[in-house]
Amino acid sequence: MTVTTNRSPIIALDVMSGEAGAAEAIAAADIAAERYPRLSFLLFGRQDVIAAELVRWPRLASRAQIIHCDDVIGMSDKPSQALRRARSTSMGMAINAVKQGDANAAVSAGNTGALMAMSLFALRTMPGIDRPALAAVLPTLKSESVMLDLGANTECDATNLVQFAVMGAAFARTVLGLERPRVALLNIGEEELKGTGEIRAAAAVLKGARLPMKFIGFVEGDKIGSGDVDVVVTDGFSGNIAVKTAEGTSRLVTGLLGNAFRASIWGKLGYFIARGALQSLRAHLDPNAHNGAVFLGLNGLVVKSHGGANARGLANAIGVAHDLVADDVSRRIRDDLAGVDMASATAAAPDAA
Amino acid sequence: MTVTTNRSPIIALDVMSGEAGAAEAIAAADIAAERYPRLSFLLFGRQDVIAAELVRWPRLASRAQIIHCDDVIGMSDKPSQALRRARSTSMGMAINAVKQGDANAAVSAGNTGALMAMSLFALRTMPGIDRPALAAVLPTLKSESVMLDLGANTECDATNLVQFAVMGAAFARTVLGLERPRVALLNIGEEELKGTGEIRAAAAVLKGARLPMKFIGFVEGDKIGSGDVDVVVTDGFSGNIAVKTAEGTSRLVTGLLGNAFRASIWGKLGYFIARGALQSLRAHLDPNAHNGAVFLGLNGLVVKSHGGANARGLANAIGVAHDLVADDVSRRIRDDLAGVDMASATAAAPDAA
Repeated sequence: MTVTTNRSPIIALDVMSGEAGAAEAIAAADIAAERYPRLSFLLFGRQDVIAAELVRWPRLASRAQIIHCDDVIGMSDKPSQALRRARSTSMGMAINAVKQGDANAAVSAGNTGALMAMSLFALRTMPGIDRPALAAVLPTLKSESVMLDLGANTECDATNLVQFAVMGAAFARTVLGLERPRVALLNIGEEELKGTGEIRAAAAVLKGARLPMKFIGFVEGDKIGSGDVDVVVTDGFSGNIAVKTAEGTSRLVTGLLGNAFRASIWGKLGYFIARGALQSLRAHLDPNAHNGAVFLGLNGLVVKSHGGANARGLANAIGVAHDLVADDVSRRIRDDLAGVDMASATAAAPDAA
Repeated sequence: MTVTTNRSPIIALDVMSGEAGAAEAIAAADIAAERYPRLSFLLFGRQDVIAAELVRWPRLASRAQIIHCDDVIGMSDKPSQALRRARSTSMGMAINAVKQGDANAAVSAGNTGALMAMSLFALRTMPGIDRPALAAVLPTLKSESVMLDLGANTECDATNLVQFAVMGAAFARTVLGLERPRVALLNIGEEELKGTGEIRAAAAVLKGARLPMKFIGFVEGDKIGSGDVDVVVTDGFSGNIAVKTAEGTSRLVTGLLGNAFRASIWGKLGYFIARGALQSLRAHLDPNAHNGAVFLGLNGLVVKSHGGANARGLANAIGVAHDLVADDVSRRIRDDLAGVDMASATAAAPDAA
């Protein structure tokens, strides 16, 4: 394992932007404060609202500082509008605290597009990374996996995909605790000749790279949830389509299951008897349990919580931020980039395309 | 409804290429023969094998002709290799029967890549269509929907996407029995500015087209199974990722469900009591129930069955072929293309990209 570089992480929490409201965000911070005794907080939002809530959480209050902001980014605000309000909003000011070095990571449950735009504008990409990627942890049949990019970049070249693989592997080592995660590129077939030129060129580079990961080639969409791969790398368009399709299919199957149980007296009785056993299914698929998507590749960490996360879900996102800071994932990414011959990706891309 | 142009469809059935074997394919043809009294068959495969099976199915035997072929395309044969064996294989000869006008549609459960390559080479695209698309019917929470392209084209421009929308709508009118299917483009957001230039340009053309469909704009991946859209249009890369991800997620959730039921005595008992009710879930998600992907846009119909389909599944694929022939879907597509201003797609594409 690496040496932890910061044993008392400070989290800049955007209290105002989530759908669940400020009270739920403050409760989440207290759950995280209990889990991580050295964690402290900068709480961005309305002074009066936060102060009124903090009275209920003395543990958190002793390790938190309120930073007043008048304005909040709405869920339907466009990124371009949000950028202009970076200095007055809870989201923008939380990100700025990371930029200024006042906090080690920002956490927000707000508008994803605005958060991406503001984070990229304020923090810029780290040396060696051309574009940041949005990465998240997903449930699998065996345990969990990491997928990126989930929507930060609509189109990606081979160099971007290679950089995403490096970042995804570093992320998986931290959040999944794996020494050599199995990394694959998402494709429409497992054979070497399948897919776009960009994907084939990225595969060629990853095959030859010296990295703390096991590159296993291409996987198709049905392997994302199988547990046979730890890091699934793709462009932001396909990644967003895949993760949303997985969400929708999960809702479809559980919806049909609910209909089946409700359709007859035998279904209702069977559900009643098996309900304890079915809790484990619900727990494994609960988005709150896997909460916390991360913008990787910036000069500073930004974690995006589901907009609708409850206190426990948001606490998990704060936990992801804590782990990434404690494990210094940014340094891991910088170190790992040295093991990749990026020039060959740039050279290979136009050739194979 | 349209006038049916062919009341006695002839199906060219590739008996040899499916994983389930020739006996299962013959049994499937008999199920279809029972369902559609005017259907008749050309059976492509080994004369001795087919003749030995046909003895058991007198109804089918009276409406089928055996066409002997020595060779079979294997599941791992490359499309380029398959193309050279078009004249000796059951798959190639079945497609050729459609080309020659001896059959109205070909049905095969074999290697998708080989089937696509052979079909495109033998039948060519129909006038007004630049590229064929692979379309299939998927289960939704409410009933069923159509998605295309599922992998025939890795990259698509705006014109391709518009043509896929026209073909998908015609397909949905036939197989789902809808008069004005709701058609949407798969995207990473529902706002007009989201996605690639190709998608935005396709949306602009579809908005202005006079077509027997309701164009509802963009949908994200989680809407594929929701039942809120009848035809989901996308490029073959994203479509293949989405459909495979949906398959994998469906397996993930049902796998976790099975684990949950097996994990305790209460789970086992609950399952036992509710098992009748759970059959409806299994039936709705059964790939055999939704079997039959279609190559749309060629001068002739080719239907691809799941490789692992059983007799009932393959009979459903034959049923899809029957319906498409009876409803003359190719004429529908030709008629509908007249309602689209394709020039504007070509003009819009480079501009928006």
